[in-house]
Amino acid sequence: MRRIILAPDSFKGTMSAIEVCGIMDAVARKHFPLAEIIKMPVADGGEGTVDCFLAAAGGDKVKLRVKGPYFEEIEAGYGILPDGRTAVVEMAAASGLPLVEGRRNPAETTTYGVGEMITHALKSGCTRIILGLGGSCTNDGGAGMAAALGVVFHDEAGKAFVPTGGSLNRVTCIDTSGRLDLADGASVIAACDVDNPLCGKNGAAFVYGPQKGADPAMVEMLDNNLLHFSQIIKRDLGLDLADYPGAGAAGGMGAGVRAFLGAELRPGIDIVLDTLNFDSMLEGCDLVITGEGRIDSSSLMGKVISGISRRTRRKGVPLVAIGGGIEGRMDGLYEAGVSAVMSINPRPEPFEQARTKCFENLEFTVDTLMRLIKLNESRR
Amino acid sequence: MRRIILAPDSFKGTMSAIEVCGIMDAVARKHFPLAEIIKMPVADGGEGTVDCFLAAAGGDKVKLRVKGPYFEEIEAGYGILPDGRTAVVEMAAASGLPLVEGRRNPAETTTYGVGEMITHALKSGCTRIILGLGGSCTNDGGAGMAAALGVVFHDEAGKAFVPTGGSLNRVTCIDTSGRLDLADGASVIAACDVDNPLCGKNGAAFVYGPQKGADPAMVEMLDNNLLHFSQIIKRDLGLDLADYPGAGAAGGMGAGVRAFLGAELRPGIDIVLDTLNFDSMLEGCDLVITGEGRIDSSSLMGKVISGISRRTRRKGVPLVAIGGGIEGRMDGLYEAGVSAVMSINPRPEPFEQARTKCFENLEFTVDTLMRLIKLNESRR
Repeated sequence: MRRIILAPDSFKGTMSAIEVCGIMDAVARKHFPLAEIIKMPVADGGEGTVDCFLAAAGGDKVKLRVKGPYFEEIEAGYGILPDGRTAVVEMAAASGLPLVEGRRNPAETTTYGVGEMITHALKSGCTRIILGLGGSCTNDGGAGMAAALGVVFHDEAGKAFVPTGGSLNRVTCIDTSGRLDLADGASVIAACDVDNPLCGKNGAAFVYGPQKGADPAMVEMLDNNLLHFSQIIKRDLGLDLADYPGAGAAGGMGAGVRAFLGAELRPGIDIVLDTLNFDSMLEGCDLVITGEGRIDSSSLMGKVISGISRRTRRKGVPLVAIGGGIEGRMDGLYEAGVSAVMSINPRPEPFEQARTKCFENLEFTVDTLMRLIKLNESRR
Repeated sequence: MRRIILAPDSFKGTMSAIEVCGIMDAVARKHFPLAEIIKMPVADGGEGTVDCFLAAAGGDKVKLRVKGPYFEEIEAGYGILPDGRTAVVEMAAASGLPLVEGRRNPAETTTYGVGEMITHALKSGCTRIILGLGGSCTNDGGAGMAAALGVVFHDEAGKAFVPTGGSLNRVTCIDTSGRLDLADGASVIAACDVDNPLCGKNGAAFVYGPQKGADPAMVEMLDNNLLHFSQIIKRDLGLDLADYPGAGAAGGMGAGVRAFLGAELRPGIDIVLDTLNFDSMLEGCDLVITGEGRIDSSSLMGKVISGISRRTRRKGVPLVAIGGGIEGRMDGLYEAGVSAVMSINPRPEPFEQARTKCFENLEFTVDTLMRLIKLNESRR
């Protein structure tokens, strides 16, 4: 073993990607003290994205006060990677669902704080923004974020206002002339694992509105408002987002970052792996270990494991996936380049019991994997 | 992979050793079509012992009519291995607990049918008897078996009778002069995984009586009767079994086979492995896979896994143990020479659900093991 890369996702509901990575690292080190072990906890753009990037790449966390989902003041943070010019911003930090627990309302919530974080990063010298779109509580089409960057939205009376999901229908024109100049020279990459369009039955409101607290009537209203908003964008910015894949991500934030920041939308795992130079790390690498809470056939659809397997397969590096739970047949994963799939469950017991032992169960499984690999090494 | 030996125990309550072996074989063959794969399902001396031996070594099953636990006529069977001189007899076939389901009574049941099977084997030309002691419903000290071989037990009136657990106290003298001559030249090896003495708090009646249906009063009585029986044996046969380890196995059958057949008591797994020439099979073997329903720290105490690991370690052959459930730390097993331990549970779910999927779960786990081994082979 020369080099082992540890690139797990979080095990949703039990362990963060960083925790998973820490356990894998400790066990691998015990068995292969001389190997280079690279920790790359990966995130899907939601909560924890910044911490994962910082854990993998190094860098600093910047704390600042911004507007929260209800325009209240909150403390949020984003990351600046060691190059000093790449910022990692997770939308969830200022507009995340956990911030509105018990008071979810996608008609009233804003992404304004996300725009403040981006502004802060640009003013701090960053020219590249990686923006995680996961876990939002908003449906404002990114209007709040744009407003924080200096874009002005006018209402029927010609008065400037900051639209939210419930008031996007009142936008009569959009003035981007006051947008922060620094945004011009910046490249923005948004981590987006869905390809939902902005509006309609597969759009932001219909698909993700209910989990943000919208009842059927509100879903209709939010959807109509996003449609109106997109029509104004088309007229005033000359940008047709009707069929743009991912425009419907994060309450229309996909459309917003595209329209107001020229962002490129890409699968989160590809952004992570590219930013961390995963491909060049694979040179001289003997094993990659990934994992997620649940591994099933959908693990192939734009998620962590498939993103990693595409690259390991190209380089011929073995990839082992460890799962909290495994469902269905794994043939598709094997065909995609996953070498083997392991489950962390040492015994039959319900999830409520298993979850309390997840750390030791993962440790046991990684230990078994290392033993099986050493077993073969000793036979050479 | 040149040679793989599959030597699993049964997964109690879900899969027989032969079923486990069949799944392991199919998966291993798929991944290593050119390897020599040797199936050695192992049993602990209880129900299934004969079938395991025949599956591993070949040979024939002999069916015959013998007396059942209540002296009723039943059909039973034993095995003759390909050498034509080794018989494998399992006590459970004529005196097993399943035969008295709903009418358990260790005071009344007999091992007579076991003696009939042994007699039949000796008369068929066998000179070596492997006798599995597991799963009995009796507490007769092997008196029934001895009677079937021609040993005569006299009561207070000098009358010959066949004692059972409840009437051993009536034995006044034992006459072995009529015992089948063929027994003289035969070697009998009894598979015995316990070292309980015949009598007392750790003896046959106290430890195993209750599960055979004895209430506390009956346990006392059975224990007293065994003590009386051992005193008569000592007086008439000159054999002191008081402290003989394993004499208390199978309702005192351990004492009976020792006294009336000069049997050697050995751990079942050692008998199996010796009979199947396991040690010489290990030459040129790249991997041994074992397994049992539950793997825990007690897996080291005279059971299948420890018996196998003692031998694989000596020859430096990797040993992987697969368990239906794994409990506690595995350090002791690793120290004993087990290379790695794997669980068959792909997800957290209660046993009632897991058991219905045990075949596919085992298949998945063996497949993962094979993939991990191939992964290393491809790296060479």
